Amino acid sequence: MNKSIGQQTISFESQPKIISSSAIVGPKEGDGPLGEYFDKVLDDSYYQQDTWEKAERKMTKENIDLLLTKAKLSPDKIDYLVGGDLLNQVVTSNFSAVKFPVPYFGIYGACSTLAEGLILGAVLIDGGFGNRVINFTSSHYQSAERQYRTPNEYGDKYPPYKQWTATGAGAMITSRDGSGPVITEATPGQVVDLGIKDPQDMGSAMAPAAADTILQHLEDTGRTPNDYDLIVTGDLGEVGSEILAELLKEKGVDIADSHDDCGLMLYNSDQGVGAGGSGCACSAVVTASYLLPYINNGNFNRIFVVATGSLLSSVTSLQGDSIPCIAHGVVIENNSKSNAVGSIESKVKSEGK
Amino acid sequence: MNKSIGQQTISFESQPKIISSSAIVGPKEGDGPLGEYFDKVLDDSYYQQDTWEKAERKMTKENIDLLLTKAKLSPDKIDYLVGGDLLNQVVTSNFSAVKFPVPYFGIYGACSTLAEGLILGAVLIDGGFGNRVINFTSSHYQSAERQYRTPNEYGDKYPPYKQWTATGAGAMITSRDGSGPVITEATPGQVVDLGIKDPQDMGSAMAPAAADTILQHLEDTGRTPNDYDLIVTGDLGEVGSEILAELLKEKGVDIADSHDDCGLMLYNSDQGVGAGGSGCACSAVVTASYLLPYINNGNFNRIFVVATGSLLSSVTSLQGDSIPCIAHGVVIENNSKSNAVGSIESKVKSEGK
Repeated sequence: MNKSIGQQTISFESQPKIISSSAIVGPKEGDGPLGEYFDKVLDDSYYQQDTWEKAERKMTKENIDLLLTKAKLSPDKIDYLVGGDLLNQVVTSNFSAVKFPVPYFGIYGACSTLAEGLILGAVLIDGGFGNRVINFTSSHYQSAERQYRTPNEYGDKYPPYKQWTATGAGAMITSRDGSGPVITEATPGQVVDLGIKDPQDMGSAMAPAAADTILQHLEDTGRTPNDYDLIVTGDLGEVGSEILAELLKEKGVDIADSHDDCGLMLYNSDQGVGAGGSGCACSAVVTASYLLPYINNGNFNRIFVVATGSLLSSVTSLQGDSIPCIAHGVVIENNSKSNAVGSIESKVKSEGK
Repeated sequence: MNKSIGQQTISFESQPKIISSSAIVGPKEGDGPLGEYFDKVLDDSYYQQDTWEKAERKMTKENIDLLLTKAKLSPDKIDYLVGGDLLNQVVTSNFSAVKFPVPYFGIYGACSTLAEGLILGAVLIDGGFGNRVINFTSSHYQSAERQYRTPNEYGDKYPPYKQWTATGAGAMITSRDGSGPVITEATPGQVVDLGIKDPQDMGSAMAPAAADTILQHLEDTGRTPNDYDLIVTGDLGEVGSEILAELLKEKGVDIADSHDDCGLMLYNSDQGVGAGGSGCACSAVVTASYLLPYINNGNFNRIFVVATGSLLSSVTSLQGDSIPCIAHGVVIENNSKSNAVGSIESKVKSEGK
């Protein structure tokens, strides 16, 4: 039983199924091009709570409830929760997990958390350690902004290359049995740091990590970008997406026809989000509410979700450190193996490109 | 292939081996009763760096180098790094992982990180996804204290029930092949919150989580505490250990003869550490440098390491939240199955008891 492909990629023999997914988003995300696909759109960022942190938590907990309802499952049918978020000590996830009597693995991969969790969930299932895993994550513009940068009231300048932390919660159930898109392979990322120090410029910092994981994945599997209906990065935004394309081109890989970025898909270009969306929720809500149903409907046969994360803290930036980054990749395929030619709807191909 | 035992426990058929372990500690930990067992004791808490955060990072990176040297392995022989720590965004682990060209899973389990990582590492190996995993964690008194509580210079009052965050880095290599103590079972914990709100009183907050995991483990395996040479909690300290014993006694389980706590083992009672040690390093360095060699020498046949974590942040405390806690349990056994009667040396049974 060899589950390794090449140097860094693993294959999941049992093909864990993503049997359910759900997403709740904030008002701005609801106004974006994918607004109609989300399960719920909040009216305001406080969500009837006293603080943004509690709003994020309420949204996350409610999204897991919704996920279970959609799957017609009670929490006792779930073997593990795997979750993480941007807040210090991943408290949104911790305080959400306490609501469910299920063993919990807290993870931290910054905006790559969705993919990190999907990999670990698939590992738990494919390895025979359980039947169902809930993978969840969240981010919230205001709670993240005031933790990482400046208090929201300061009226901080917004440089055009800065990205907008998405408000939202995304969750999925990965299962041994059932139907839905399947996780066939994963390429967990290495930490990469090419020396970018500006914490406002995450796209530039993360692009090399995305390139590293994509190149390794293609080498390991012997595929080309054309073998995927979509290679979708988490939140490189405009700046990072351009750098990624250049970095890959230097290595002889052209992803122009198959690449999109969740940070560009989530917002319209006139929504004032700088270079695009970011945050754990970015790839999570786009994958949960848009990409997975799109695969399930047979419009895509195989996609490669490469969620990217900046592994800094506000303290490391103030102490002059550069930004280590990571990108975890997960291959998700249509279960029916229809070999449908995946045509990306014009709506999905983001306006930013 | 059923890897589940009872409701919440998993068994590792392939019995992943802990082939190497190493620990570096701070001066205070070096002065404690286990001082002679650590691989290195720092002279001062800055470790020739400008900041405590960078000192923690240097110690963690150096400890992984040391671990590889002891195992006579180069980094390319390692399939995954699994690490986490107490600093915001687990930056010590992220900045250490960047030094090694190995896929990395960042985790957060507060002071339960060692056990969470051992479980995920054993899952990766037993599931067939790799041959060797490095599991690492760290904490640092000064960097933790100023992040979670008050700037170190303030001369904050130290209540007797408060615990002392250990300065240290612990790491282990878990492997499919080789020799060393083996991981036979694990009971990943659920998040438990009984309403404790005082962030200085971690022992009281964490004890119910430890009780929950221990009771579930004993029920799942059909064992009693006497089936273990040692049930060792991570960092309940004096206060939490007493509460744990009482909670278990209420359920008819007496662990008086088999329980100890890493937070009590690490320091002498005259070292001014309040109710005992805490922090990710606490269970990590005691396990890496003392318990694992002790098992390997045949003095213990089977131990249950139950690392406990408080999943709060300084923001949640200020916002009036109680403290959700978790305890992850790992069974580690002597590979030779000698059935040696485990006698806990008087030296190990902590003075605090």
